[in-house]
Formats: sequence, C-alpha cells, structure tokens
Amino acid sequence: MTLAPDLTQKLQDSFAKQSMMETFGASLSYLAHGNIEISAPILEICQQQHGFGHAALTFGIGDSAAGYAALSVMPLEAEVLTSEMKIHLLAPAKGDILLAKGRVIKPGRRLVIVESQVFAVENGVSTQVALMTGTMVPVTPK
Amino acid sequence: MTLAPDLTQKLQDSFAKQSMMETFGASLSYLAHGNIEISAPILEICQQQHGFGHAALTFGIGDSAAGYAALSVMPLEAEVLTSEMKIHLLAPAKGDILLAKGRVIKPGRRLVIVESQVFAVENGVSTQVALMTGTMVPVTPK
Amino acid sequence: MTLAPDLTQKLQDSFAKQSMMETFGASLSYLAHGNIEISAPILEICQQQHGFGHAALTFGIGDSAAGYAALSVMPLEAEVLTSEMKIHLLAPAKGDILLAKGRVIKPGRRLVIVESQVFAVENGVSTQVALMTGTMVPVTPK
Amino acid sequence: MTLAPDLTQKLQDSFAKQSMMETFGASLSYLAHGNIEISAPILEICQQQHGFGHAALTFGIGDSAAGYAALSVMPLEAEVLTSEMKIHLLAPAKGDILLAKGRVIKPGRRLVIVESQVFAVENGVSTQVALMTGTMVPVTPK
Repeated sequence: MTLAPDLTQKLQDSFAKQSMMETFGASLSYLAHGNIEISAPILEICQQQHGFGHAALTFGIGDSAAGYAALSVMPLEAEVLTSEMKIHLLAPAKGDILLAKGRVIKPGRRLVIVESQVFAVENGVSTQVALMTGTMVPVTPK
Repeated sequence: MTLAPDLTQKLQDSFAKQSMMETFGASLSYLAHGNIEISAPILEICQQQHGFGHAALTFGIGDSAAGYAALSVMPLEAEVLTSEMKIHLLAPAKGDILLAKGRVIKPGRRLVIVESQVFAVENGVSTQVALMTGTMVPVTPK
Repeated sequence: MTLAPDLTQKLQDSFAKQSMMETFGASLSYLAHGNIEISAPILEICQQQHGFGHAALTFGIGDSAAGYAALSVMPLEAEVLTSEMKIHLLAPAKGDILLAKGRVIKPGRRLVIVESQVFAVENGVSTQVALMTGTMVPVTPK
Repeated sequence: MTLAPDLTQKLQDSFAKQSMMETFGASLSYLAHGNIEISAPILEICQQQHGFGHAALTFGIGDSAAGYAALSVMPLEAEVLTSEMKIHLLAPAKGDILLAKGRVIKPGRRLVIVESQVFAVENGVSTQVALMTGTMVPVTPK
C-alpha cells in the first residue's frame, strides 16, 4: 500500500536528520505502509577487521528500516524509539551494497513488533546477512 | 586479570583494522582477561534525528567490546564473529562520551556467551543506555 | 522434502523420552527436512492466571519444534541443545490447540539458526501467538 | 525493600491461579520490591530427553519471576504480560531444585525491562543454568 504524501515527507525529513545515515551513505529506497527499505554502500570507512561491512552498519540500517516501518503505520504526529532488537548475523556483509527491508509484524498503540532482513548484494547476487526482530515504542515529542 | 602482552597486541591490531571504529572515533580503553572496554565520543556524524548518539554507534561499540572480551579468553590464533546479539536500549545516548563494557558470561570452545553494558557520560555523570547479551563463535582465519 | 525413515524414527524416539511433552499432551504432527510441527491441546493444567495457555507451554513446544527442525538436517548420530532463544508473544494463547511450526533459517556444522511460529486454533480459526528465533548447537552424546 | 502486604497478597493470589505453576510444583519463595524468586523441583514429569529439567520449566519459572518482579513495582490494580523474552541456556538443568531470581532492570509506565537468572541446585551446589532479559507490558484487566 502506497504511503500518504505527508507520511512520506515525514519519514524523509526524519531520515535526513540522522547524521549517522549520511555517514553511512544510506538512503530510503522504498516506502510503503508497514514496509520500508534502506540501502547503503559498504563504504571503506564502515568496515570491520576483514574488510566486510561492519555489524554496526548492518544493525544501523536494519534497525532504522524497522523503525520507519513502525512509524509508517502510526498517526502523523507520532515518533518511535527502539526499545529492544535482536540481530542474527547469518553471513559476512560482503559486496557492494546492503539492503535492509523492515516490516511490521504486529502493530499496536503501545508497542509495535517489527522485523528486518538485511541483504548484501555482490555482482547482482543478493545474500541475506541478517535477520532482526524487535520492539518499537511510540514516544511523545517534547 | 591483566592480559598477556601478545594478546593485548593482537586485540589492538584487530581494533586498528576496523575502519568503522576509526569513523566512530572509538578507542580500546581497558583490556583484561574477559573484560574489555571501548569508549567513543558522540560525534556529530553519528547521531540520530534528535541529536543523540545513534543506536548503530551504541550497538557497534557494545558488540565490539563483547567480541574482544570473548577473544581475550581464547587461544592466540583464534578469531571470533558475532552470531547473534540482543540489545535493550534503556535511555537516550545523550552526553559527551559513550563507554561500552564487554564481559564473558560463559566461555566455551564452540561458542562464547557475552554481555555488554553501554553507558553515556554527561558532565561526569554516567547513565546506562544499553544492555546487550549475545553469542560469539570462534572462526578459523583463512 | 520427506524425512528418511531412520531420521523420523530418531526424532520420534527422542520426543517420546521428553516427559515434559507428555505432560503437555503434545505430539509431533509433521516431519520434513528442516520443517517440524508440534501440536498440543491447551490443557487445564498448563494455564496462566487468566485461563490462557501458559507461556511455558508456548515456549516449550516452539523450542522443541525448532530443535527437531535443526536435528532433521543433521547427521543421524547428532544431538542438539538450545543455546539461546528469543520469543515474542504476539497474542494470548486462547483456544483449543496450539501448533508450533519450527524451521531451519541457516544450517551449519557448529550452530544452526532456527525460527518457530506458534499458532492458537480456536473454533477452526488460527491466530499467531508467538514468533521465536534461536540458536541450536550440536552436542556429542556421552 | 519488603513488599507491602496487599501487593504480596496480590502476587500470591495471581500465582495460585496459574495451573502451570502448580503442575511444575513451583512456589513463590521470595518477594521484595523489584525482586522475586520462584523455586521448583525438577519433577519427573518436566524433563527433556536426557532426564534434565526441560527448557519449558526453566523458561516458565524464569519468565514468571521476571513478570512478578515487574508487577511488584507497579500500582496495585496493574497487571502485566510478557511481550518478549530472550533466554540463554548456560548449562543443563541438572539437580534437585531450580531457583529463578527475577529483577527489574528499568521500570516504566509503558514497559518494564526485566532480567531473570535461573540456578539449578544439586547436593547444595548452585549452578546458573539460564540468563534471561525481556520486556513486560502493563495491561488493563477487563
């Protein structure tokens, strides 16, 4: 389901304020109701000791994709924070680009259960590198 | 228990190869057998939309502290990878510096169970911002 | 993929030795390579304070379904133990029967990443009550 | 901090309504503000295939101890449900008695972060068999 223009704008504005995403070179690549994708190149400044993408990068875009998925099903004035998140790292983040697909498992007024799957794309071949499940909580902006 | 000089050297060499840690401005601030600390300033390039430290930063240094804690109790030739990690975000990462304290919960030949606690220090006052538990697996370097 | 007869026998023998499963009134209801299902009635002796199925029941059959899914992709002499498991409880376990569907996310020699989904069936309507992800480790029988 | 008599009564009444706890032979063995202990024998009807306590038993009393710890810091009319829980199984549940110690990590109006440690006692020697962290949510009784 396509996202309403004002919700799309809200998510894009929020994303633009995250300097960490800019450092990662990440971008919001797909927005729909309950489904958000974020992609990022595996930059030389974001690697671990073997030259693969760092778990902080994988976690960071996976967590953000899940958070924005939660935000996409909530009222326009809402904001969310991650309360907890578990990540299974399934394969090295090896390749050119990482793609995180966040989705809502169970919406709710007090908490939203989310999932994220992160893929590494190398020479056009996509491999799942992470599976995440977590809990997002709505917060009232001050 | 103090870490043997060759193990200390190994951890410092590995840490220096992680470009993500350099991007975070992070440093290995304490090394002992089964206990490793990593500290990092909350840089302007590592923030979320409200100006606090990004969860990717908190996760990144917490995960690394836990991983090096696991490495510190293993044979000199060993390497480890994070298999899974759960993070509870307890408070906003607000302040000047983040400090991650990783420790080994249960050592093992096939897997090492670890914990990490991350604190934000603001004007000398320390607040716990994250609690993490996870599984590290030894890998044979190629 | 159908399970080989000797593997089927092995799983059934192991299941029969779990007195907890007998107490739950649980049974192995489906066996295939990497996919195992366990069903159990919500007995009066397995409830929580509001008369719904207890989380211990939901966790117990979900964990076992995941463990047997892992076992189904391993050599005949192998045994597995749960190392860690996270459960999201999505809805009350309300109804007549619980059905746990375990599957292998990522097989491996040293550890197997698994998922389990648990459903409550009430008057023929199925509702997902839990989502679990975890880590199974092979053990050498003594 | 000792628990007020009406809160103590409330927890005992709730515990008594959980038929699963009676099946486990479990009892509330310690109650204080934010700290609750539950003990249970390892009954013959609650074992896994090697004759040790089943993970469902370990999870069940650990989860309940954490849930009652959360309830002990909330208003008298509150009730809680487990939203999610991660368990690390550190050693086989071998011995005569299991003891679960639940405590509140971070209280809150909308969610309470909790921890539980479960120990097996064999011939007077106590071994930690599980470490759990999770999220409890207040619910309004119908």
